[in-house]
Amino acid sequence: MRSKSIHNFSAGPGTMAKEVIEATEKAINNFWNGVSILEISHRTKEWIKVMKETKRMMKEVMDIPEGYEIIFLGGGASLQFLMVAMNLMNKKACYLDTGIWASKAIKEAENIGEVKIIGTSKDKNYTYIPEYQIPSDYDYFHITTNNTIYGTEIREDIESPIPLVADMSSDILSRPIDISKYSLIYASAQKNCGAAGVTIIIIKKEILGKVNRKIPTILDYQVHILNDSMYNTPPVISIFTVNQTLKYIKKLGGLEKIKQLNEEKARLLYAEIDRNKIFKTTVLKKDRSIMNVCFVMEDHYNQLENDFSEYAFQNGIIGIKGHRSVGGFRASIYNAVTIDSVHALIKCMRDFEQLHIH
Amino acid sequence: MRSKSIHNFSAGPGTMAKEVIEATEKAINNFWNGVSILEISHRTKEWIKVMKETKRMMKEVMDIPEGYEIIFLGGGASLQFLMVAMNLMNKKACYLDTGIWASKAIKEAENIGEVKIIGTSKDKNYTYIPEYQIPSDYDYFHITTNNTIYGTEIREDIESPIPLVADMSSDILSRPIDISKYSLIYASAQKNCGAAGVTIIIIKKEILGKVNRKIPTILDYQVHILNDSMYNTPPVISIFTVNQTLKYIKKLGGLEKIKQLNEEKARLLYAEIDRNKIFKTTVLKKDRSIMNVCFVMEDHYNQLENDFSEYAFQNGIIGIKGHRSVGGFRASIYNAVTIDSVHALIKCMRDFEQLHIH
Repeated sequence: MRSKSIHNFSAGPGTMAKEVIEATEKAINNFWNGVSILEISHRTKEWIKVMKETKRMMKEVMDIPEGYEIIFLGGGASLQFLMVAMNLMNKKACYLDTGIWASKAIKEAENIGEVKIIGTSKDKNYTYIPEYQIPSDYDYFHITTNNTIYGTEIREDIESPIPLVADMSSDILSRPIDISKYSLIYASAQKNCGAAGVTIIIIKKEILGKVNRKIPTILDYQVHILNDSMYNTPPVISIFTVNQTLKYIKKLGGLEKIKQLNEEKARLLYAEIDRNKIFKTTVLKKDRSIMNVCFVMEDHYNQLENDFSEYAFQNGIIGIKGHRSVGGFRASIYNAVTIDSVHALIKCMRDFEQLHIH
Repeated sequence: MRSKSIHNFSAGPGTMAKEVIEATEKAINNFWNGVSILEISHRTKEWIKVMKETKRMMKEVMDIPEGYEIIFLGGGASLQFLMVAMNLMNKKACYLDTGIWASKAIKEAENIGEVKIIGTSKDKNYTYIPEYQIPSDYDYFHITTNNTIYGTEIREDIESPIPLVADMSSDILSRPIDISKYSLIYASAQKNCGAAGVTIIIIKKEILGKVNRKIPTILDYQVHILNDSMYNTPPVISIFTVNQTLKYIKKLGGLEKIKQLNEEKARLLYAEIDRNKIFKTTVLKKDRSIMNVCFVMEDHYNQLENDFSEYAFQNGIIGIKGHRSVGGFRASIYNAVTIDSVHALIKCMRDFEQLHIH
């Protein structure tokens, strides 16, 4: 029985919609004629139908124009740090350094070619999105749209004179975006798309095939496009959860509706943090993430940090411990986190304030 | 409801034990306090316990000695074709060419250094395991122990003067092996270990750190060992099925017992193929696989191939179509395929013979 009393604010793998979990449970029991989704061959027509449907729904939900391909791969977004550079960098690329994940992407690319960091917010522990100028003579510009650990987010679709590559692992499907502004988008599934184990990659086809290096087969986007994401056995069950998540989003009313819900959840939570005398945000207001809300104790109440952790846990709130490099708290309010859970956290913060400030 | 009438002989993803499917279904519904295994953070102590237990059981079941590490990665065995070469090849390595998968491993390694093919059975469409001499001056020797497509298998643990690397994707956990003979074993899960989405790698630690090249972080075995397979988010649900499969194997009596069961299933099936006037094997007797039993129609009955496919399907038998490069039929009888399913296939072959030979 799924307990109603748990509010899961985990940064990922994160909360999934009840409908998605139930559909997956059912497919584990019986996907086709008593055969579990865990044991169905990826070469059966029943599975290929799911693959095609997932791609079609992804195109529909994200409004992906002609000329783009969608692939589903294992190995995580971290493997994409390497694949992006291998497939797109002829000589040099520029990157925006907005946190640990961006830094990891940079490090992997530096092995492949020349990397120019055109902006960084490392000076203030990545608590804001830095200013930058995009040069026109680089192979691509790489950004991390949402920085899970720090709670900052680039929420507009950037105009870039060179191909724009975006790691959207933690904010894909959270709002409508103008795909035509991007040349490549990648996102691991376990925040807004489904279960861990699959990464979604959306590629403008014309940017491929322009590098001189010999790309290892398994790292070559063109190989995976040619083989419809089945060059090797795909992560079947994880892709199935993506399929169900897209159905859920469609049923809910699409990304415009999702955006409204997400903005409302974030507005409520930031308002409480700003109001509450015990907590404060760590992030520059204009760069606040709609997905990951980071907050710490006001200096005067620092000694209450463990107390609040414990108090929240007693109230069914889990997954709010901040990343060790930031400390404090982080409430991840991905698509599937309900407004009820947000209200539960807000109530908990209010009650805690009352307990300690008279 | 799981239908009793389906006998799934798929080459992978393949049949899984009922217990494993049921335990996974339960964890999807409620892994901890109403939270699904699909939405539990990989940083929670509840999940870390599963990771540790899976590793511990793998060591126990496979009798892995000191000095070896076990890691769990996404990306499939095809990613290991690249990682093996990147991590172990300084200048040159030798490979045994026993089929399409071995050829793919060779192709990927040829990008990294000099590859010597010391034996191939390509001349007879890989229907036997070729003879070979292992040279002593190469960095490692790579074999594919079981060739899923062709139904051949190397069933003894080879003595090699240089580090032995084995792709055991389709026969790992099918019998006890002497791990000390191997320097690296890798296997995708979806045949004998669990659901697609995770690859298991067993590495003798002392063979690492000996190459000069700069290995990309995500492809570096040492990085994954250092981070206990959590350098990035692991494929949680697939690893969970490996955990449950190991529990099931332990309960059944371990690999010695599994081996007996597997050999009995294979003995029965090959005996029927040898006896039946309509079918014949394609593989040299001494190299017959215990996991994948390939057979075709005797020349005289070739025109009955589609009829048999249809007849088998009517009798609840699925997944027996041979790979397009071999044709005919392939019954994959991995650990979780029951002897009842094997008897059902045999009955079907006998009845079909009676229908057509009077």
